[in-house]
Amino acid sequence: MASVRTPDPNPGWLSDFALDETRSRVPILYVEAVPVRMDAMGRVEHLGILLRGSATGAMSRTLVSGRVMHGESVRSALLRNLEKDLGPAAFPQLPLSTVPFSVAEYFPLPGVTPLYDERQHAVALAYVVQVTGECEPRQDALELTWLTPEEAASPSVLDDMEGGRGALLKEALAYLGVLA
Amino acid sequence: MASVRTPDPNPGWLSDFALDETRSRVPILYVEAVPVRMDAMGRVEHLGILLRGSATGAMSRTLVSGRVMHGESVRSALLRNLEKDLGPAAFPQLPLSTVPFSVAEYFPLPGVTPLYDERQHAVALAYVVQVTGECEPRQDALELTWLTPEEAASPSVLDDMEGGRGALLKEALAYLGVLA
Amino acid sequence: MASVRTPDPNPGWLSDFALDETRSRVPILYVEAVPVRMDAMGRVEHLGILLRGSATGAMSRTLVSGRVMHGESVRSALLRNLEKDLGPAAFPQLPLSTVPFSVAEYFPLPGVTPLYDERQHAVALAYVVQVTGECEPRQDALELTWLTPEEAASPSVLDDMEGGRGALLKEALAYLGVLA
Amino acid sequence: MASVRTPDPNPGWLSDFALDETRSRVPILYVEAVPVRMDAMGRVEHLGILLRGSATGAMSRTLVSGRVMHGESVRSALLRNLEKDLGPAAFPQLPLSTVPFSVAEYFPLPGVTPLYDERQHAVALAYVVQVTGECEPRQDALELTWLTPEEAASPSVLDDMEGGRGALLKEALAYLGVLA
Repeated sequence: MASVRTPDPNPGWLSDFALDETRSRVPILYVEAVPVRMDAMGRVEHLGILLRGSATGAMSRTLVSGRVMHGESVRSALLRNLEKDLGPAAFPQLPLSTVPFSVAEYFPLPGVTPLYDERQHAVALAYVVQVTGECEPRQDALELTWLTPEEAASPSVLDDMEGGRGALLKEALAYLGVLA
Repeated sequence: MASVRTPDPNPGWLSDFALDETRSRVPILYVEAVPVRMDAMGRVEHLGILLRGSATGAMSRTLVSGRVMHGESVRSALLRNLEKDLGPAAFPQLPLSTVPFSVAEYFPLPGVTPLYDERQHAVALAYVVQVTGECEPRQDALELTWLTPEEAASPSVLDDMEGGRGALLKEALAYLGVLA
Repeated sequence: MASVRTPDPNPGWLSDFALDETRSRVPILYVEAVPVRMDAMGRVEHLGILLRGSATGAMSRTLVSGRVMHGESVRSALLRNLEKDLGPAAFPQLPLSTVPFSVAEYFPLPGVTPLYDERQHAVALAYVVQVTGECEPRQDALELTWLTPEEAASPSVLDDMEGGRGALLKEALAYLGVLA
Repeated sequence: MASVRTPDPNPGWLSDFALDETRSRVPILYVEAVPVRMDAMGRVEHLGILLRGSATGAMSRTLVSGRVMHGESVRSALLRNLEKDLGPAAFPQLPLSTVPFSVAEYFPLPGVTPLYDERQHAVALAYVVQVTGECEPRQDALELTWLTPEEAASPSVLDDMEGGRGALLKEALAYLGVLA
């Protein structure tokens, strides 16, 4: 059942129409990442949280996040989205295993799960990724803030995370053993 | 950006055309499961492998597998596909966490990864699931075979698995600590 | 280098003196378990927390916990301690893999880590274990309380856990995806 | 119940007599590590296997391994043993989480489990650790060999591993997704 179609000049990218149509048909696969800086003992010192302006002008916090494209491996998608959100000099250390610390399920209606995404049903494989270089957010992210585990666990941060990602950030802190 | 469209009478199900079109656009999210029977100490005694006839008449072995539908949670998809492939009396014990033991990536071309699926780019969350009831395969599965870990690890079984799933089955055996 | 010594009539058990001496020499290996009741979809409904009186008469909350004996497997130790703390009719479903959700490190001085144990340096492999039967605590545990995830995550419970185990309980809730 | 004893000049280290006595009383906690070199995409390129002479003059292969001392954290023990076996310039990247990829149980009698250690009952937390620097084995290890995943999975290597660690190495390969 091999498809016979004209090669896509921008493989993986979809028009707005095709993307909206696809979003109405299947859950969309994402990768998400919590960038961290570690000390020499492998303990997390800081977690990187993105601050960005929404379409309505409000500010919200979020994680590194993006779609897995058609034909793209999970590792490639993770690396591409880390570069998209943190810039080309972040030097992320991709995880040894593609098993995520959490499978984050976003539904279009708030309240079904702690996580929601009004645009779509999305399922994200969530990773913690150590970065050792310089991070310079691009695109629509205004700022990258480095928070200590204590700061990241504060309600003022958790409640401010886009789409209910405070719950996901808490899972990352638990996975790292710093949700005291 | 809520969609305004006629409610789908069979939500999640797609026409063949819509499914083919979607498969050309995004990776399709699946769940897969290795059903197991355990002894009282939590050690695996047998693993359930499905035997089924392919379109070409050849027989091949496979795992419990199926799509995650639009709007469906990972747990619901796992339960639905276990029931589809093992029947309504299998009494599967769904895993406590939705973190899979492996993220299985299938590409349409053989050789890119050990796993391939000529129909599509698929990403499967793979789980081991204990079953305590009676399993009666339905649909196109002809038979469910219960194998000991030693039998499952034999080349004659591993090499016979559809789409290169022998690699995934070995990961399951390693996860269970019985890949001696 | 096989040891030539009189067989131990109670293998694994140590006199108080030998145990104290051993505790001053090496970290002591423990298993810990959070018993849970699940719904049919594999979502946690209740977590079992033990309430017991301390030597000083104060009440505190704790988890199922106990040493791994010499010559005993981790699975056997887990099953034995579940039976010790929950009684013989709890019907625990031992985990498929012996990989714990957390490695809990207890040091004798409070403040080194969130977890401490004044008696010893202990390292516990921590598991979540589904139980389907009747639980009747024995020994020094006065009561087993079944809490919803929301109740378990409340500060009044977490702060009351012996040895700082509130941090461990939060990790269990995160692992189960119910630390919203 | 704080112990009142003379401070140990070499905390954690035990005399041969005390160590033998302790080994007859409790399981001894170890850490083990499979050092790996990764490519930029986070895929393993090579795994480091130690070659060393045994007391009987025979050569055998093994992993980075060592005890967790009294008072020492798991991370510290991992770092210390990596430095002991790989030298001070290996620059290991300690894992983000202390949850191991496997809990390896060694019993004194061969045949109980695939893993055995004639000296003792040992329980090892096993990790995969990326190294980026130069590795120069010290002590009794004669050589560090870097093997591709295919080479590491060959029976000639797996069967040669000390104490049945071929089973553990296969679990590491499965965890890394390269046990094809």
